[in-house]
Parts: sequence; structure tokens; C-alpha cells
Amino acid sequence: MGQRIGPKTVRFTSPPNILSFASVAGKAEKDGAYGLCFDTTFDDGLWGEKTYELAERKMLKTAIESAIEKASLKADDISYLFGGDLLNQIISSGFAARELGIPFIGLYGACSTMAESLILGAMAVDGGFAQYAVCATSSHFATAERQFRNPLELGTPKTPTSQNTATASGATVLTSVRGQYPAITHATTGRVVDMGIKDVNDMGAAMAPAATETIICHFEETQRKDDYYDAVITGDLGTFGSELFIKLAKDSGHDFSSVHKDCGAMIYEGNPHVNCGGSGCGCGASMLNGYFLKEMLGGRLSKILFVATGALHSPTSALQGETVPSIAHAVSIEMGCGQ
Amino acid sequence: MGQRIGPKTVRFTSPPNILSFASVAGKAEKDGAYGLCFDTTFDDGLWGEKTYELAERKMLKTAIESAIEKASLKADDISYLFGGDLLNQIISSGFAARELGIPFIGLYGACSTMAESLILGAMAVDGGFAQYAVCATSSHFATAERQFRNPLELGTPKTPTSQNTATASGATVLTSVRGQYPAITHATTGRVVDMGIKDVNDMGAAMAPAATETIICHFEETQRKDDYYDAVITGDLGTFGSELFIKLAKDSGHDFSSVHKDCGAMIYEGNPHVNCGGSGCGCGASMLNGYFLKEMLGGRLSKILFVATGALHSPTSALQGETVPSIAHAVSIEMGCGQ
Repeated sequence: MGQRIGPKTVRFTSPPNILSFASVAGKAEKDGAYGLCFDTTFDDGLWGEKTYELAERKMLKTAIESAIEKASLKADDISYLFGGDLLNQIISSGFAARELGIPFIGLYGACSTMAESLILGAMAVDGGFAQYAVCATSSHFATAERQFRNPLELGTPKTPTSQNTATASGATVLTSVRGQYPAITHATTGRVVDMGIKDVNDMGAAMAPAATETIICHFEETQRKDDYYDAVITGDLGTFGSELFIKLAKDSGHDFSSVHKDCGAMIYEGNPHVNCGGSGCGCGASMLNGYFLKEMLGGRLSKILFVATGALHSPTSALQGETVPSIAHAVSIEMGCGQ
Repeated sequence: MGQRIGPKTVRFTSPPNILSFASVAGKAEKDGAYGLCFDTTFDDGLWGEKTYELAERKMLKTAIESAIEKASLKADDISYLFGGDLLNQIISSGFAARELGIPFIGLYGACSTMAESLILGAMAVDGGFAQYAVCATSSHFATAERQFRNPLELGTPKTPTSQNTATASGATVLTSVRGQYPAITHATTGRVVDMGIKDVNDMGAAMAPAATETIICHFEETQRKDDYYDAVITGDLGTFGSELFIKLAKDSGHDFSSVHKDCGAMIYEGNPHVNCGGSGCGCGASMLNGYFLKEMLGGRLSKILFVATGALHSPTSALQGETVPSIAHAVSIEMGCGQ
């Protein structure tokens, strides 16, 4: 059962456990500093498929199937698949769900989707609606570029604040079964925040205020101190957006500079060609399910706050002169709470 | 708390009540047989706005605000807005959520979104995560035509099996507060079904198998007889899809011909210009929140099964030669269960 502890935050009274997780990533992500963390990688954007869209679908399906297999479960054991991606009509998720046959709840939260899916999955499990649920997202550089900006064939130069949509996917199996697992203890659901950014190549700046609001709200509503978590992990603010977040939080009296990590800034660490880092819902999903949860199981991290941020514009809204509304959701994941 | 009673069906042990509801519709819908049922209507696709997209956003925001106001609540009282629409990146919902300031869970289930949002809203309320939640969707003929098919300016003729995307919106406020309201007692969540239909102008045929599977599954898992409900209401199969559904169900040994209603077939009743009827997530949403729930409060219906169906293709997937995958979710709404 849930317990509301503030206007945006709930506590899970029987914290759902993360039974298993899996990640898939492409070439640039494999060549990054965390490349060895991903379960499955491939060297070509198409991964043997005819189109990039089919490759993305294959990534998502592979991540979900791997996570289910690692839990020694079958697709039939899963009550709900909470999934979404960046493509119009979330076709990566819809078509992957067709092949998996799991009851499907389609989500769109742009790059915030991994946190959104974990919140809903945790509600379903803690609320008694599911013994097992899978939460998953994906993104692909080539499918996102041609849909949101320009097809790769055009060779459009990137601006200095731009981020690189990660070709990656992650999936998490949640369960009501008790045990020594990372457990989801709290969730803070964000509202849509818009500070008037109009540059669709500057997502980090658009999303930083949403991240700041949700994170500060989480700390206030849980009455936790700024250093409570071993890591406060944003999904894809990138290097510029991360600086902005640290500054905005400081302006509000919170110092997260020693615990903040950003999946977007990390995923291409050491690669000078990607400007401000990674983005896309696969970025946070793959780093959470490829790196951070392994660090928790290995005892190197015991409490993390995973905060995925999303920019909720569309090419149509941008062409119509709209600014970029953003959202951030926070999920508290802790060891020793799911026994 | 939820209780699983089958692989796809859950029972809400404290059935969430439908505290209030509201609907908004455009000209063609106002001129239909149920035109007087909608709370707010307008006579021009733009509704005083500069673009059709802005008009759709206004519809959705108006429906949500009206529903909240009818419940004598304020936006701040609502813990979650579960919303989605047909537009890329669900901009109608994202931008409406920006103006409302309610914590936002973005959904994409094509025309199944109203049922999807009710399932998640009911889980949040019954699971103790929210005292009040709003579930809402919208669609607009002009925004959908130019995104999924052709801009209206082209004057493309419609095929005989085509349906007309309804310009309409609906919103429902769910609550844990007990009382004499229509209550959500069960939910059956569908998987993605694909029978190989490739004609994107024949959505009814693509969605009928998904509706059939979910509805039969609901009756089997709840062990209810075919005549248990006063009405089994599909969202937007249209006239042709409805015939197909009745036939497919009969082939499986179920006869719903005397209780089946389709919002798509109903919304333009008497208007010969709309071929197979209405579609779009606003179609089912406006008929549920404009007509059926009023019939329940008026004592003319006491038990209904609301089944919204969605086609999960995109223009990209169709151009790439994919078939149309579909999904249907069923929500059981009953009087006398929420006291």
C-alpha cells in the first residue's frame, strides 16, 4: 500500500524489490567509460536489421527478455509491461510488446520515461496488482535524429549545447517477493515546468529547472538531508544542464555537488565528439540498469535517488513557436528495505 | 489494494469512485445524436485559437478543469493527472499539464488511452497512492488528420471503411472517498494483438480482434455471464469494426449483440458523411464522460464494461510496411460498489 507523505511524494509501505535488470547499448556507448557494464552491445546502428526503427525495437525487446530471463521468469509470469520510448506513437515499445505478449501500458514521458515506468511499476506491485512487472525504455540516435531534428544523411552540424541521443535500452523487473534486493522506497512525481527555453538543441537547460524542482521537493517531503543518498542521479541533463542544476539547487539552499551524477555526462565520458553528453530515455535506463544497480548489488552504493528528466516538446510545437516544457520524476532506491 | 483474479484482470478491493466527470466536443459531435450530452461544445475547429493543436489543448484543459470544479476540488487537491492523446509526443496533454500544474503521468495508448488512464488512476487510488486522481484524453479531427494522414487542405477523399477522428475530450476524477457513485471494480489490461491488417484506413478491422480478446478474457477471468453488464461499450470500433467484433465473439461462443454499444458508431449517429463512425481517444472519452456515466447516475444503467481500443501503428511504421498492432483495455464500472 502507498502512503502519501507530501503533495508529490509517496512512500511504498512494502517497497517493491528490483529482482533483475538488463541493458543493451550501441557502439558509441560501448566505447564510453561504462561500455563494459552493458549486458549486450552491438557495433552497427542497424544491428542486422533493415531499419534503425527495427534495431531500436530489437534493443528494447532484448533488454526486456534478458531481464525476465535473469529473474528465472517467463513472459507469462509478468503482469504488466510499463514501457515507452521517444518515437512517435511509441512504436518501439508497442511493437516489442506485440512480440512479448505481456499486458502493455504504453507511456510517454520523453527522457523521463524510465523513472515514470518505475513509479507505475512500483505502484502496481506495492498496491497488490502485480507480483511481477517490467519497466523498460529505449532510445536510438538515428531514429531520434531523423524524427526530432534531421536525418543523419544530411550531415547537419551539432550546436555546442547539443546532446547525443544514446542508442541504448534498459529494463527492470519489479516484484513483491521479499529478499535482499535494491528496493523502491519512495517516488516523487513531477509537474510540468517551463522556464521559456526555445532552443531544442539545449535540452539540458530546459530540463535542469524541472530536475531541481522535483529533487528539492523530494528532499523536503521526505525530510531527508542533502547527503542522505550516496548518489543523486539525473538521467540526461548533460554537462551543461548538470552545472545549471547544481547552481539552481545551490540558489535554493541545497548542495548536491558531491553526490550528483548525470547519466548523460557519464555515458560518453572521454569522447570529445558528443558535446554536452548523452540524452534519450535509453541513456538513464541503460546507466541505471547497466551500472548503478550493479554498484548497489556490489555494496558500493546503498541508497540512490534516480531522477529521469524529459523535454515534452514536439517538432510541431517547436515549429509553432512554443517553448520546451519539461518534467522530472524521482525514484528512491535503497538496499535493506525489501526484506 | 488490488487482488489479481486472472492473468490479465485485477479486482479493486476498495473500488475507486468516479466523483465527477466532464466532456468537451466540437461541431460535428454536437450535431450528432448525443450532442446535448456534452458539457461544453464549440462551433469552429479552432475554438478561437491560432492552431488546431492549441484548440485541442484547450479542449483537454477545459475538460479536466470542469471535472475538477464539478467535484468542488482545486488542481492542488489532485495527486496525479493520467493523460494522453494522439499527437506526437502527446503535446496536448503535456502542455495542458503545464498549465494545470498537477503531477503528470503521460500515456500513449492511441484510442485505448481513456481506459488505460482509468486503470492507472484506479490503481493509484485503490493502492493508497492518491485520494484524488484525474484521468483524461483528447483527440481533434484536424490535428489527427494532418499528422496521421493528410492535411485537411489537401481534400483527400475518405475510403468507405474510414472513421472520423472525433474532436472531443473527456476527464474523470477518481477518489478513495466512499459514497453512492459509479465505482471502478475490475480492470482487464490487454496485450498487443496483430491480425495482419495493413490498411491504416481500416482501424475498426485492426482493433476488433484486440477488443474481442480483452472482452472475452474479462468475462472468463471474472466468471461473469455475457449478460452481466447492462452495456459492453467499445471506444471506437465504428460500424464495420463493431460487426466484426460481434462475429468474432460469436465464433468464440459469446453473444454480446444485445448489450454491445460502440461510442464510434454512436457519436455521429444520423450523419451520413462520416462513413464508419468516429474514432480517436476523445471519442470514447467524451461518450463515457458525456453520456454513459450520466446514464449510470440517472439509474438507467447500473453496470457497464468500458473497453477502449487503440491502433498502435505510426505513419513511419506504416511506410516501413508494418501491419497495425492493436490493444484493448477493459474497465468495469458499477453502481453500489463504492460505499
